[in-house]
Amino acid sequence: MRTVSIDLGKRSYDIRIGEGLMSDAKEYLPWFRSDQVLLVSNEVVGPEYADRVRNALGDTNLQEVTLPDGEHTKTLDTAKLIFDALLQAKFDRTSTIIALGGGVIGDMAGFCAACYQRGIQFVQVPTTLLSQVDSSVGGKTAVNHPLGKNMIGAFHQPVRVLADTSTLSTLPEREFSAGLAEVIKYGVINDPELFEWLESNVEQVMALEQEKLEYVIERSCQNKSRIVEQDETEAGMRALLNLGHTFGHAIENSLGYGEWLHGEAISLGMVMAAHLSLLDKRIESSSYDRLIALLKRAALPTEPFSGLSAESMFESMKVDKKVHAGQMRFVLMDGIGRSVVTSEYSPTHLDLTLQHFCQSS
Amino acid sequence: MRTVSIDLGKRSYDIRIGEGLMSDAKEYLPWFRSDQVLLVSNEVVGPEYADRVRNALGDTNLQEVTLPDGEHTKTLDTAKLIFDALLQAKFDRTSTIIALGGGVIGDMAGFCAACYQRGIQFVQVPTTLLSQVDSSVGGKTAVNHPLGKNMIGAFHQPVRVLADTSTLSTLPEREFSAGLAEVIKYGVINDPELFEWLESNVEQVMALEQEKLEYVIERSCQNKSRIVEQDETEAGMRALLNLGHTFGHAIENSLGYGEWLHGEAISLGMVMAAHLSLLDKRIESSSYDRLIALLKRAALPTEPFSGLSAESMFESMKVDKKVHAGQMRFVLMDGIGRSVVTSEYSPTHLDLTLQHFCQSS
Repeated sequence: MRTVSIDLGKRSYDIRIGEGLMSDAKEYLPWFRSDQVLLVSNEVVGPEYADRVRNALGDTNLQEVTLPDGEHTKTLDTAKLIFDALLQAKFDRTSTIIALGGGVIGDMAGFCAACYQRGIQFVQVPTTLLSQVDSSVGGKTAVNHPLGKNMIGAFHQPVRVLADTSTLSTLPEREFSAGLAEVIKYGVINDPELFEWLESNVEQVMALEQEKLEYVIERSCQNKSRIVEQDETEAGMRALLNLGHTFGHAIENSLGYGEWLHGEAISLGMVMAAHLSLLDKRIESSSYDRLIALLKRAALPTEPFSGLSAESMFESMKVDKKVHAGQMRFVLMDGIGRSVVTSEYSPTHLDLTLQHFCQSS
Repeated sequence: MRTVSIDLGKRSYDIRIGEGLMSDAKEYLPWFRSDQVLLVSNEVVGPEYADRVRNALGDTNLQEVTLPDGEHTKTLDTAKLIFDALLQAKFDRTSTIIALGGGVIGDMAGFCAACYQRGIQFVQVPTTLLSQVDSSVGGKTAVNHPLGKNMIGAFHQPVRVLADTSTLSTLPEREFSAGLAEVIKYGVINDPELFEWLESNVEQVMALEQEKLEYVIERSCQNKSRIVEQDETEAGMRALLNLGHTFGHAIENSLGYGEWLHGEAISLGMVMAAHLSLLDKRIESSSYDRLIALLKRAALPTEPFSGLSAESMFESMKVDKKVHAGQMRFVLMDGIGRSVVTSEYSPTHLDLTLQHFCQSS
């Protein structure tokens, strides 16, 4: 059992990491403001885990809403189902939402918590590695719009996060790898020690060795929190966390949400950012090769992909949130564990990178 | 020309009050972060005033969205039209929304500004007396849900408010009176001097005497800001502003949105709050009579109304945001200019008040 404390003044909270946490009433009860609790899950996670939460919460006035599964459901229309449930139960401002599921459930339930009566509490119970290492920290909530991912959202911190590692045993391997993409990202951004540790331990993590799992989640949350604490609303260095995301979101937009997992898109997105960094002579080819090798061992995509169009990727990058007043910005690498946010890059190299990775089919 | 400065630290802004402000480019331009500007208005206000904004802004990349009119349009579905316009124009985080219209436009455009890419700027150009004296201050934004008013929203401050009094000359008399209800409310809450001033000047205000108009708007904004500055997110004394609103919202819910104007519902809501205060022996009948007399001179409803059902009002009061953990709270009067937030009231008297004002038809 490990705890990462996120220090955000009045909005501080703890991330608890360990096996079986969601079944333990005392992990939730002290944080509720009343007995009005809405459990939000989806049709995949709900049948598997909702019982554990139900049993733990016993007497609480627990209401439930079970959403369809998948990134394509992360819309205002699905969010409405959560608002409907809160209002039908006549829940007031003292109520709490429990988000049981991966990033989609966390983002959407968190957004509803941010907006319901202008803000109620929420507890996150992330059930995927990706959501345990990524969306547990940062307070970003959102839904998608047909014209862009995460375009409608709010900053809203949970009151508690329960990263119950027992859920990872039922997680499909592809999704586990997608989570590892974000872990590797923290290494590349500014934690060379974590990157090296992964080079020695990635197979044991993938075999779900409990101690190594907890270490990976703890270290990732610490990494992210160090950045978020300094920059809660993404004015400056928080943008580092977007390593691989400008390309990654464009991949997701190009392919349509749901084709690739988010972490898979981020994996190839990081490779593309590294490629541009290489062309711009920011890094040596040895760093590029180390990144590719680790991502491959984590079973993540690193190769050029024939389903992508360079033109449509470029178009969707222009509307990305990382664009400021028309100026495109990237997170580029100056080495493993040394990344920077910059608008200094060669447009010719950007074009070459896009052409290289988007092979016409 | 008058200015009320709202002091909220980093989120401070000025309310400018005067004739012709919306036609003056320098009232907006210094506050934009880029030339990406979306003008949101409705089919009534747009044709009347949008030209003035267009002419003032000249070279700006001004996009426009014109919404249908009325409280019933204040929904997530209508808000989507604003998100669509922002994304179709490929607007980024540096963009600004101008909300040109009454409270419905301000609430909805402000909510979209709060959520678009997790927060962009907005400038409010309130065109009704109600929105000039009420929604200019406080940063409350929201849309309605079929089961409750303002149930989905956010706290989001404008960067500037332009209360252009020239718009009041085309405002229907009924809507002007609805705005006066909120002005009178400030007097009743904690400004006995304003209440007395209105007893001497209400007819001149209704005749749109410029100096008196500006005074009323300025004084109202000062009153509201004094309260909001101390309590930005409605934990405590801000609830005073809800005088008449627990009853008022229930009236609106009972009748269906749009039957009565918000200010009209607040007028009768204040009378009901005063009636309960009278039964609870908090005020003398002379205070009750003064309130009724002033509201009547402002052409506002004060009489029992046969279209209301006591039962349905009671039901919708239970889901009001002012309910905390099942405990109903009211703003009651201890005198003209002395109101309190309290859950101490006689349920029998509440019942009598509801019965008195909801006459079976």
